[in-house]
Amino acid sequence: MIRSRDNEQLKTIRKLQQKRWRDKLDLFVAEGEDLVEAGWEPEFVLVAGEDVEPGLLAAASSLGSGTRAIGVYRRRWARPGGRLSVYLHRVADPGNVGAVIRSAHALCDGPVVLGPGCADPFSPKAVRASMGSLFARPPARARFDELQGTLVALDPHEGISLPELELSAPVVLCLGGEREGLPPELGGVRAGIPLRHGGPESLNVAMAATVALYDVANRMAADA
Amino acid sequence: MIRSRDNEQLKTIRKLQQKRWRDKLDLFVAEGEDLVEAGWEPEFVLVAGEDVEPGLLAAASSLGSGTRAIGVYRRRWARPGGRLSVYLHRVADPGNVGAVIRSAHALCDGPVVLGPGCADPFSPKAVRASMGSLFARPPARARFDELQGTLVALDPHEGISLPELELSAPVVLCLGGEREGLPPELGGVRAGIPLRHGGPESLNVAMAATVALYDVANRMAADA
Repeated sequence: MIRSRDNEQLKTIRKLQQKRWRDKLDLFVAEGEDLVEAGWEPEFVLVAGEDVEPGLLAAASSLGSGTRAIGVYRRRWARPGGRLSVYLHRVADPGNVGAVIRSAHALCDGPVVLGPGCADPFSPKAVRASMGSLFARPPARARFDELQGTLVALDPHEGISLPELELSAPVVLCLGGEREGLPPELGGVRAGIPLRHGGPESLNVAMAATVALYDVANRMAADA
Repeated sequence: MIRSRDNEQLKTIRKLQQKRWRDKLDLFVAEGEDLVEAGWEPEFVLVAGEDVEPGLLAAASSLGSGTRAIGVYRRRWARPGGRLSVYLHRVADPGNVGAVIRSAHALCDGPVVLGPGCADPFSPKAVRASMGSLFARPPARARFDELQGTLVALDPHEGISLPELELSAPVVLCLGGEREGLPPELGGVRAGIPLRHGGPESLNVAMAATVALYDVANRMAADA
């Protein structure tokens, strides 16, 4: 039973709250019993009351009190691919990145491809938002000019209505951060999710990704 | 120019980070220039560098440094109604509540109705996630037995596939918190969003609400 905060495993967990340590050690942390159960082979797991005093584990957690288990894992990355996948460009909120990883796992066969300026998918908040889908479907990293297939640039301000776009696999749905959007050089087909007049100009980026995945995945399934 | 943290307006802003003060004063705070611009008639607005020293405004902010403007507003509530609306039951995450308010404003004509156990839609995090839609479309409060129309209970585990459900207005899409789901007494028609086999059991609740709104709103528009 670990009874000192100077224990090396606890020190590692605390370090992995910071991106530079995740990059240096090539490790990350998953907090909570449900996530640890969903995880791949861990480097180590600490369970409160079994391996470590509960207060010490809570103090090492980034999610605050009540964490019953924390696992440390080696990072894995996938390659871009699949009939349908998502590319994110400068999506800086880790909760949004994690939520899109979960939605893509639920709705398409390809990974979430992270371009420049995205939040780290291995940050505690992104891992939590992915709810285990990070393990089942690790993200990929690529520049948009490395992607294969039809790029659909989701843009709330221009382009045709997404449901009117005829598509055949492979398709990559591309979304940018809420303020900047996508760079013009990305090219591809511009399309927007139809919204009510008088409402907001756009959906939250994770909502937009999920709706677009739902729309395109259903139509691709109907054509198949 | 306010130069003291003991200023009454700054004290009010700090108090309004707490729900009990929002309830007591019937006020709430919107942080950031974009939100303040989207807001209705404020009780007061403080702009950094014009009305108040920037450091003092940042210290009163719940979003951290860099806030250029904070407005204080009286709370408003809507009544349930509309051809299509959303009911949330024990959705405790303020970011999810705010995001659903934004999505509903974008996709349907009715408000988001908050049942018991939901996060306060007037908390700073929910206001931020709503991105101004809170002002344009304030939420309602009701118990599910007060709702009018067809209740569609979104349930990832049972019921028919949502796209196969024939619906006519008024429709209320009902979603529960991620762990507990909806109470059986809610009744209504059970329906689920079709997800891939082998993926996660469910989407994040805000994603599920948005996809369901998109699906049903498009079909109701096509029928109209």
